[in-house]
Amino acid sequence: MSARIVALGGGHGLYATLSAARRLTPHVTAVVTVADDGGSSGRLRNELDVVPPGDLRMALAALAADTPHGQLWATIIQHRFGGSGALAGHPIGNLMLAGLNEVLADPVAALDELGRVLGLKGRVLPMCPIALQIEADVGGLETDPRMSRVIRGQVGIATTVGKVRRVRLLPGNPPATRQAVDAIMAADLVVLGPGSWFTSVIPHVLVPQLAAALQATQARRALVLNLVSEPGETAGFSAERHLHVLAQHAPGFRVHDIVVDAASVPSEREREQLRRTAATLDAAVEFSDVSRPGTPLHDPARLAAALDRVRLRGSTAAPTVEPTIPTPTVRSVDER
Amino acid sequence: MSARIVALGGGHGLYATLSAARRLTPHVTAVVTVADDGGSSGRLRNELDVVPPGDLRMALAALAADTPHGQLWATIIQHRFGGSGALAGHPIGNLMLAGLNEVLADPVAALDELGRVLGLKGRVLPMCPIALQIEADVGGLETDPRMSRVIRGQVGIATTVGKVRRVRLLPGNPPATRQAVDAIMAADLVVLGPGSWFTSVIPHVLVPQLAAALQATQARRALVLNLVSEPGETAGFSAERHLHVLAQHAPGFRVHDIVVDAASVPSEREREQLRRTAATLDAAVEFSDVSRPGTPLHDPARLAAALDRVRLRGSTAAPTVEPTIPTPTVRSVDER
Repeated sequence: MSARIVALGGGHGLYATLSAARRLTPHVTAVVTVADDGGSSGRLRNELDVVPPGDLRMALAALAADTPHGQLWATIIQHRFGGSGALAGHPIGNLMLAGLNEVLADPVAALDELGRVLGLKGRVLPMCPIALQIEADVGGLETDPRMSRVIRGQVGIATTVGKVRRVRLLPGNPPATRQAVDAIMAADLVVLGPGSWFTSVIPHVLVPQLAAALQATQARRALVLNLVSEPGETAGFSAERHLHVLAQHAPGFRVHDIVVDAASVPSEREREQLRRTAATLDAAVEFSDVSRPGTPLHDPARLAAALDRVRLRGSTAAPTVEPTIPTPTVRSVDER
Repeated sequence: MSARIVALGGGHGLYATLSAARRLTPHVTAVVTVADDGGSSGRLRNELDVVPPGDLRMALAALAADTPHGQLWATIIQHRFGGSGALAGHPIGNLMLAGLNEVLADPVAALDELGRVLGLKGRVLPMCPIALQIEADVGGLETDPRMSRVIRGQVGIATTVGKVRRVRLLPGNPPATRQAVDAIMAADLVVLGPGSWFTSVIPHVLVPQLAAALQATQARRALVLNLVSEPGETAGFSAERHLHVLAQHAPGFRVHDIVVDAASVPSEREREQLRRTAATLDAAVEFSDVSRPGTPLHDPARLAAALDRVRLRGSTAAPTVEPTIPTPTVRSVDER
């Protein structure tokens, strides 16, 4: 049987992981953040009270069947309406997900149904069945450098000129999507990241039932770091600092492997330092050429090769009996 | 091989014919008017320069596969967005058709693709590949009863308190959809009506290539009259007057059979008069119980039975060789 891979994230980072994972197995499940409040997703959640569809739509497109119809529908759902009217800028897939959700009254059923049109073999799930907000403590915006200001909303956090110190989900301790917990528990490999660190990666470990499943699963757990610091929320962050921030938000969180682009950390001194930091998470570092040369993007084939190495490393520990779903534990990290 | 039926019309009338025809054969083609300028269709054609999708969407829903997925998607495309925002009132299927049309740049390809999602065995086609307007000469709106006023737009014509005398398409002599001409030529039975007479039925005979195909085909040709006069464009029109108006707009147009609800024309005197009028179109009248008792709606099973009788009457004349497509002739009836 081919491996079961679960990829957690959002936006373009998740799209990259999914494009890699689908090369390894048809059994790919995407677990997607639901706190976007910008662009088309922001307009739709204001208007219709839906789980923001943008990142979910991108994940569907990434997993669309490699057939003419699957690829046509991937193009269709990604296409944004032109013109300058009420629909301008909305990707067709966002409107379809919003509409399916109105009819089916269940975001998972809506995603499964659109997935069927796209010929998905895998599955796309929201991390939480309700729309969330992200709130951040941001430094560097006040005269006193020790002071933080609270910024609410993914767009505001992703584009702040300040320094994000901590993020929270609103409402706090939201429920996980049941099927996402099930997928994590049944996985052979779970991949977190890459992506906007505070708004697409860390939110997953702030959902208590997801964090618990990530610790309870017998799957190999990998963290994929970003290639370059993005402007905004993690401007100037080193690879090491990404790890520190994650550990700070989820003190008990452990991964087996951290996939780092070799070219992003060229010196042996830096690598050694990163290995030491990783050891505090009980993790080994996998330095791999995972970027598309000359771009700040992950290369799907190279990332797939790195994920496959990581997965095989964990295969001796593969579960032989079906693990049970953990009782959700309430964590204090996202309380306020 | 089962019969090939082509149904021409628009709106709820066409929905009724399609619901009947699909009971007889999987080979049903809908040919749909494209002049709607009201509601969601009006908003979309103003915003995006698309063929108005509303009547096309209803026809797709009428022909959706009789499977759980087909019927689910029929519900989905018919569902109108709630709320009070930019999307409110748009049926999901209208947005999908508009979006597919932007991506594929071809209304027929867009309809075929959405038809595939719905599991259609038949096909839905616009009568013309570009959006049209309808313009009418309407009497009874001026102090002088002999004067007409020009009303433009399907909504204006369908709701006028005046008396519609004549309609025209804008632009005049529009091209027919090639595949619609092909379907008419290959059909065993062609059905025109029921529906809003001036805005859903007569427009078809004002498209020169469609009118020519309707005369050249060896298919049995049936006209289905409305059950009751609608308020607005044909308020107070008798069955006979419906025929007169049609003949006036398309002098050369001939049908074999006219399907009339028996309950709508109860007296023998009226029936005889209707038979005489029908004879001027070389047509026989089929008086049938085609309504759903107690409603002003056609009953799909009863209408199907009537259409089947009409079809069998024409089966000896069924073409044995594939007919050729007629050279389009330009007709003067819709010139201005």
